[in-house]
Order: sequence, then C-alpha cells, then structure tokens
Amino acid sequence: MSGEFNLIEKYFVGRQNQRKDVLLAAGDDCALVQVPTNLSVAISTDTLVAGTHFLASADPAWVAHKALVSNISDLAAMGATPAWVSLALTMPEPNEVWLAPFCDAFFKLADYYGIQLIGGDTTKGSLSLTLTVQGLVDPIKALRRNGAQVGDWVYVTGSLGDSKAGLDVILDANLANKPYAQELEKRHYLATPRVLVGQALLGLASSAIDISDGLISDIKHILQRSQVGVSLDVSKLPISNELIQFLGSRSKAQQYALTSGEEYELCFTAPEQNKGSLDSALSHCGASITCIGQIRPQGTFDLHSNSQPVNWDLSGYDHFK
Amino acid sequence: MSGEFNLIEKYFVGRQNQRKDVLLAAGDDCALVQVPTNLSVAISTDTLVAGTHFLASADPAWVAHKALVSNISDLAAMGATPAWVSLALTMPEPNEVWLAPFCDAFFKLADYYGIQLIGGDTTKGSLSLTLTVQGLVDPIKALRRNGAQVGDWVYVTGSLGDSKAGLDVILDANLANKPYAQELEKRHYLATPRVLVGQALLGLASSAIDISDGLISDIKHILQRSQVGVSLDVSKLPISNELIQFLGSRSKAQQYALTSGEEYELCFTAPEQNKGSLDSALSHCGASITCIGQIRPQGTFDLHSNSQPVNWDLSGYDHFK
Repeated sequence: MSGEFNLIEKYFVGRQNQRKDVLLAAGDDCALVQVPTNLSVAISTDTLVAGTHFLASADPAWVAHKALVSNISDLAAMGATPAWVSLALTMPEPNEVWLAPFCDAFFKLADYYGIQLIGGDTTKGSLSLTLTVQGLVDPIKALRRNGAQVGDWVYVTGSLGDSKAGLDVILDANLANKPYAQELEKRHYLATPRVLVGQALLGLASSAIDISDGLISDIKHILQRSQVGVSLDVSKLPISNELIQFLGSRSKAQQYALTSGEEYELCFTAPEQNKGSLDSALSHCGASITCIGQIRPQGTFDLHSNSQPVNWDLSGYDHFK
Repeated sequence: MSGEFNLIEKYFVGRQNQRKDVLLAAGDDCALVQVPTNLSVAISTDTLVAGTHFLASADPAWVAHKALVSNISDLAAMGATPAWVSLALTMPEPNEVWLAPFCDAFFKLADYYGIQLIGGDTTKGSLSLTLTVQGLVDPIKALRRNGAQVGDWVYVTGSLGDSKAGLDVILDANLANKPYAQELEKRHYLATPRVLVGQALLGLASSAIDISDGLISDIKHILQRSQVGVSLDVSKLPISNELIQFLGSRSKAQQYALTSGEEYELCFTAPEQNKGSLDSALSHCGASITCIGQIRPQGTFDLHSNSQPVNWDLSGYDHFK
C-alpha cells in the first residue's frame, strides 16, 4: 500500500535499538516477531484525529507523546510489558517541519518504554495517526475488567481532573490567564502511562482499567463486566492543587476528577487481604495510589462525600456526542 | 480512547466465530492472543483514506473488501496464515447506512480467511480505515524479499493490469462505455489475496512480495534487498483479454501490467531445481502462475519483449507524488 519509501527511510527506519524478539521490522511485507512460551500477546489500537483528539497546531512532540501514551496505557491496564508498535500516519503532505520533532519525541518515548516500531503506513489525507501497540503478559495473571468482587477496594493512581482542565485551556483562549493554565495544558498532552504499576498489580488486583473516557465512564465497564456495583467517596478523589486553583472550587475539581478523560491513570480493584502487599509492591513505581471507594452488589452506584450524598449531573466523554 | 460503545457493540461485537487462540477480544483494554510455540507473528498495517485509496461514494462492501485484501495480501507475501485483525475506523458521523454493508462484507471475508477481529477504535474525522493484520508463520521458512539468487526464475500469480484500468474507470466517467469498464472497476476493488499460494511457496520460493505499488516498483524491493538484478520478458506478462479490449492495444496493456498497483498478486522467485515442485504445490491453489523472467547480477534491469529491448517510460505509484 505505502509508496512513500523515502519518507519512511528518512524518518522511521533505524531510529531505535533492535529488540531481540524482532526478527524483521520495516523493509518487508510484514514485521516478524517472536513470542516467549507461556506469555500471550496483548494488543490495542487507538486513533488520534487532528481536530478531534488534538489541535492541528499542537506541538508535534506533544502529539507523539499523547498518541503513544494513550496506547501504552492500555497495555499498562492489563499489566502487560510493552514490546512493539505499528504507526499509521496520514497527513496532507510530507511536512518535514512537523515530522522531525514528531519522530524525535516518538522514538525517545518508545525507547524509554522499550517498545520498538515494527512497521506502519504513511498515506495522504487529513492529519491523523493510528497506533497498534503490542505487549507481553502471562494470560493467567493479566488484569481484566471482569474480576472485581463485592467488598474489594477501589483505587486510582496519580491525581485526576487535570487533563480536562488542560483541554479547556486548549479549546478556550480566554482561559490562558487562569492560574496554572499552561501547566494543565501540558499535563493534558504529557500524561504518564502507568506501566510499572500495572505490572506490580499482577496477582494483586482483581480488575483494572485505564482512565481514558473519564473515571465514571470507565469504572462502569468494570462494574458491567464484573456484575457488581460501587460506592465512591468523592472527598477521597486525588486532586492537584493546581486544578483547584484553576477552577476556583474543590467541588468543581471533584466533578472534573470524575469525568476527565484521557487521564491515563489506572483505576483498579483489590481485595482487603492484598492491601498490605499492594502498598509494598507499589512503593517503587513512582505513582501514588488512593483508595476512593468499595465494590458493592450489582445495581448500586453510590456517590457520596464524607457520607453525604452528591447529586451532580455527570456524563462521560463520547467522541460521537 | 474510544467512547462509541453502542456503535461497537451493535456492529462489531459477536459477529464472528471465536478463534481458540483468542483469549480476549473486544471488551477490555487489550485483546489477548496466544501464539503456538515455534511460530512467529507476522504483522502488517495499511491505511485506506477516502479520496486517496477509494472514493467516498464507493460501495462500502467493496471498501471493506479492498481494505482487508490489501492487508491479508501482505501476510500472503510472507506465507503466513491469517489470524487476527484490528480495525481503526474514522468517520464524520456514525453513518449506519454505510456501516451495515461495510460490516457485513468485512466479517464475511474475514470469516472466509479465518481471521478474527480482536479490537480497534472508532473515531470522528474524515473517512479512513487503518487495519493491522496478524498471521502466524514459521520464521525459518517465512518468505522474505532478500533471498533471490542470480539464476532464479521470476513468477507472478494471476494476471496484471486490471486494477489500474479499473482505477481509470473510477476516476474518469468518460471511460464507462469502454469494453469491460464495469468489470475492471469491480476487479480494482475485489482482488483476491493469494494466501494459499503464499503458504504453498514456503520452502520453495527464494523471495516474494505482493504487488501493491506496481510490478516494477515492487520487484525493485526484491532486487534491492537481495542485491541482484533482473531480466523481464514483457511478452510473457499475464494479461486479461478484458484489459486488452479495454485499452485497445496489447503494448499498452503490458505497460499497465508493469505499473498497475493494488493488484495483490504475488511476485516471487524460485531456483531452477524447484520448478517441478512449484507446479505440483500450486496446482490446488486456484491461481495460475507465470514465469516472466530471471534474476541477474546486481545492476541489471532489463526489460525486453521476445528478445527485443523495450524503452517505455514507467513510473510506480506513489501516494505523495
């Protein structure tokens, strides 16, 4: 399909260390990779479209970062170790001013996570990228959405809400003078996928998901798959001081934390007896974790703040709404 | 990333038989698949953009066919057995009139090749699709581009040139009354990936590639990777009677055969001693094969017709040109 060989040779080939399990990368009809016995391949695909997921004027390095993180985050949510990525890049013309910083950032981050570009396609059209990432994981231990049990505790990594505030800044120039506006915009693009946390949770967490659509939307997938309910204490939600300063209200920041998409933090559940092990397993992962609630019987969806019920109108983030 | 759950549930989930090696398909952060010991995973990604690779007004079933075939053809060119596919679909709005026939055709063809949809993404933007297909192949036997040796014979499957003529018809309404115009248009969209041929060539062919950019462009990849040259007899090129009728000249049809992209036939090389084995191995694959030339020392690129040199201006198909 692709005929843009000079483009590929110049920007994409030979930019990374070769993983030993990659038998063949760019330069043939397919890439060829080897999978260790007893491990399975975890695969995820995400598309980022200019105008929908990032502004065409956004820093290409930030776009590369967001694209890779949104994909690697899906591997993290399964506890998988990142391995390979394919990149399909569509652009109106071979714009080298855009490609050079995009590729620099892409390969720097890919190398950091030990993930090798094994192929892809470059085509002509409006700007968008589709990444397919693959990782390796023990299929018995892999974190899934369907293992939450009544009584399990609900946790999130990092803090929530900054990404939505950053998006506000991106979409409304009037907000640029609000406190921490630039910092929040940066956090929207430059999230950290929780790869080490996901791996540390193998054997400890009963379910996990990454927060890409918003905590409420995403936790509902765990509830649906696990056939359980939940009780969440919004006063426990981890929120940055910068977000509270930006929004001017803790209550508004809590609402942001519940609905903010593209956070790429993990939400996971774990049984009571693993609480101690969790603390020690996660102490070296560089991410804080916060217990925000507990799994309840199916049908329960309880939001409260220090035992007081909250009645906010919250809706998730849907690209077609 | 994706928030269009109703769309995915309605059109994509539960539409196929479950492969035994798919541990987890749609419905979690990643798909999980199992790879047999001793086999490697072959991976290829192709993007089709409306306006570049198909007309937005094209039959959605034909678009589905072309998208899958262009990807499966890359597996065929390695001799890999198709296994799994991810589909990233970007469209301006969730258009059910388009999606229903697209999905029907997509799943029908995927089932035919035993390839299961394991995930993907649906996003808002101008119409395009990116597929990542994966197949399984013995890494020792996998057909590559770099194994052609001086003296090997050069073969192609099927016939060449129809796809380019079909594209002419698509792009120029004035050609609709020419002989076989509609048939050639259909052939452009509805090519056959040579999966069985690819598998039959394992251990027999010294190199292989699928014809996606045009015979001349594609065979040059074999020459470059194998550090050899080639001599091709254009009078041997397999050409359909319909193409000759449509173009009105055998010479023009031969030029089409040399440059027509998106054919998805295989071009491969094999040593003299495998000639007999090739004939018997390929007799049950439902595709004719034709010997069109011979591998020569590096630096040779000789086009002739019954020993007479030809001097046509031929250039490949480059999406950015």
